[in-house]
Amino acid sequence: MSENLHLVTLCGSLRAASYNRALVQALPELAPATLKFEELEWGHLPIYNGDLEQDGMPPKIVRELQERIRASDGVIIATPEYNHSVPGGLKNALDWLSRGPAPHGFFQVPTAILGASDGTIGTTRAQAILRQILATLNAPTMPSPQVLVANANTRIDEHGVLTHESTRSFIATWLVEVERWMRRFPRSERS
Amino acid sequence: MSENLHLVTLCGSLRAASYNRALVQALPELAPATLKFEELEWGHLPIYNGDLEQDGMPPKIVRELQERIRASDGVIIATPEYNHSVPGGLKNALDWLSRGPAPHGFFQVPTAILGASDGTIGTTRAQAILRQILATLNAPTMPSPQVLVANANTRIDEHGVLTHESTRSFIATWLVEVERWMRRFPRSERS
Amino acid sequence: MSENLHLVTLCGSLRAASYNRALVQALPELAPATLKFEELEWGHLPIYNGDLEQDGMPPKIVRELQERIRASDGVIIATPEYNHSVPGGLKNALDWLSRGPAPHGFFQVPTAILGASDGTIGTTRAQAILRQILATLNAPTMPSPQVLVANANTRIDEHGVLTHESTRSFIATWLVEVERWMRRFPRSERS
Amino acid sequence: MSENLHLVTLCGSLRAASYNRALVQALPELAPATLKFEELEWGHLPIYNGDLEQDGMPPKIVRELQERIRASDGVIIATPEYNHSVPGGLKNALDWLSRGPAPHGFFQVPTAILGASDGTIGTTRAQAILRQILATLNAPTMPSPQVLVANANTRIDEHGVLTHESTRSFIATWLVEVERWMRRFPRSERS
Repeated sequence: MSENLHLVTLCGSLRAASYNRALVQALPELAPATLKFEELEWGHLPIYNGDLEQDGMPPKIVRELQERIRASDGVIIATPEYNHSVPGGLKNALDWLSRGPAPHGFFQVPTAILGASDGTIGTTRAQAILRQILATLNAPTMPSPQVLVANANTRIDEHGVLTHESTRSFIATWLVEVERWMRRFPRSERS
Repeated sequence: MSENLHLVTLCGSLRAASYNRALVQALPELAPATLKFEELEWGHLPIYNGDLEQDGMPPKIVRELQERIRASDGVIIATPEYNHSVPGGLKNALDWLSRGPAPHGFFQVPTAILGASDGTIGTTRAQAILRQILATLNAPTMPSPQVLVANANTRIDEHGVLTHESTRSFIATWLVEVERWMRRFPRSERS
Repeated sequence: MSENLHLVTLCGSLRAASYNRALVQALPELAPATLKFEELEWGHLPIYNGDLEQDGMPPKIVRELQERIRASDGVIIATPEYNHSVPGGLKNALDWLSRGPAPHGFFQVPTAILGASDGTIGTTRAQAILRQILATLNAPTMPSPQVLVANANTRIDEHGVLTHESTRSFIATWLVEVERWMRRFPRSERS
Repeated sequence: MSENLHLVTLCGSLRAASYNRALVQALPELAPATLKFEELEWGHLPIYNGDLEQDGMPPKIVRELQERIRASDGVIIATPEYNHSVPGGLKNALDWLSRGPAPHGFFQVPTAILGASDGTIGTTRAQAILRQILATLNAPTMPSPQVLVANANTRIDEHGVLTHESTRSFIATWLVEVERWMRRFPRSERS
């Protein structure tokens, strides 16, 4: 149990000042020392179009992301909520990552979700739909606790720093559970 | 009731040989003569990024689509199902169309959904999530009948023609209901 | 447009001091004078069991509720959220009401949803699932505005009276829209 | 790994000739010898009503079910689909089982879902919503493979025996995965 876990993070928003990127960037300092993080960019992917695949194989930029995810011990996704659902751009990235010869990018890769929004809802509807999508991908998602960062403008400052103390400590506790979750699905046991 | 209705169609897939485009293209010949159709392309939209907006206003290519939708009497969306949900690209288009000063593209615009897939499920899961999104956009969606074209490869030929007779007549009946639905929400009553 | 509408209300909770019953009871005084309300009790229904049906016909207590709903101009459902979803008891009532020879209880009956909860979420997740169920029943549901009464314990007093002024005026505005919605689906046009 | 696992099963239908009970009853003979099954009845529960709780404690018949679930190594739920969603009766049982002092009945108890229906859909929509509910209960649900038994009338005979060979072997394979899933969440590690 003492070896490090290498986790990949995805931020569901492309905005430079995204609240969800602020969450992603806060993870390393809040996490147990045994968790290492690498953020994956997906904004350069085209809109999914099956005609861009060759012999059932997605383009190279997709395969590179798939390999980095498959080489990780798990994935954390920080998602905003657009129209009560998952951002189209993030879903588009997941659509690409699910393609190609088995196993696809997320197959049997453990996952965890968090999200931040203005307002009081805190992305709970987007997270429910994201959870459904990840189940379809056979990427086991930690069910609880659920991190719903509401009123993000009062918890994240103008430099994109998560400053709200009780949110910080909640996420720190959550990351202990995330580590436990990821270790239940060791990479060596994937098919 | 005798005036024509001008309906906009969206196909959720970008593939040239898309089953859902085949559905969209079959609509005019199956519809009552009072329904006129215009397909809207959305594949050229970038991935949504709030930083591309200026003073809360989306780019011109988005505003043009919004105006064409708002000038219509209703929208029909033919959606495939990707990972048990709405294609990311289609959701991305809806995310863009929901932006800008009120009323946004879909606000109070009546809608109807259909979908085709290989296999037996026929996009029912994608349609359920799309329906939720459209409710959020305040775009009233016809609840029933639901058009789930399963085993599309046996119903649409290699030229993209919907050849399956009972599917054709079901869609023809459905279009009568679509017209009735759209007429319940006349453009003149939108705020 | 000047005739009264007769609306049936359902409260998704059986608790005597239910917040959602408080919402239901507040409707008459907040509504336009042309809306008349009748609350329907469903707590006496057994758990649905197909073996209780005879020749495809549900028991008499179900048929009575079906007839009262079909005789109405529309249904308003006030739902709590149990485990991020619709209360089992309310879903059980809907399951019964959907049975029997066509048209079932809700077929083509227009509907509207509201909900109250403690906490900040205000039943948005339950409402999304309820909306899906009503679409399946072909009972057109008003998409917007959505009434999410959060922190209900601060808005409803110990006598079950909705005292929060801005919630009262929001619901009053919403009821104007509800009337407009229900009138789009006149009883005379049902099949 | 050689010790037996004691699994609790729930059938979402109360019908005597339920297809889903047929699935539940087929499990023991299809499962690895290390899996032992106990079916839990829930049809005698009343409709949930918070007023039936005393000092936050659910009635004794609920606590007994909670204890049997907590004493198990995992739960398998076979669900029909009513109105594109979870049967109200099954949801009502889950609502009760989630009550009382922590940990409630399902907290940290691993779960797996299957379902049978007439028609071609095979309960996929009910399973998606059930999955969401179980995530809320913090009861980790195996994401895949998904068992969707469509056209159940051709696969289950008039004695309630699952006779369809490829469905039997698929469920046998699925049960190997279920065992693996349940063993990832040993009872000794629950809080």
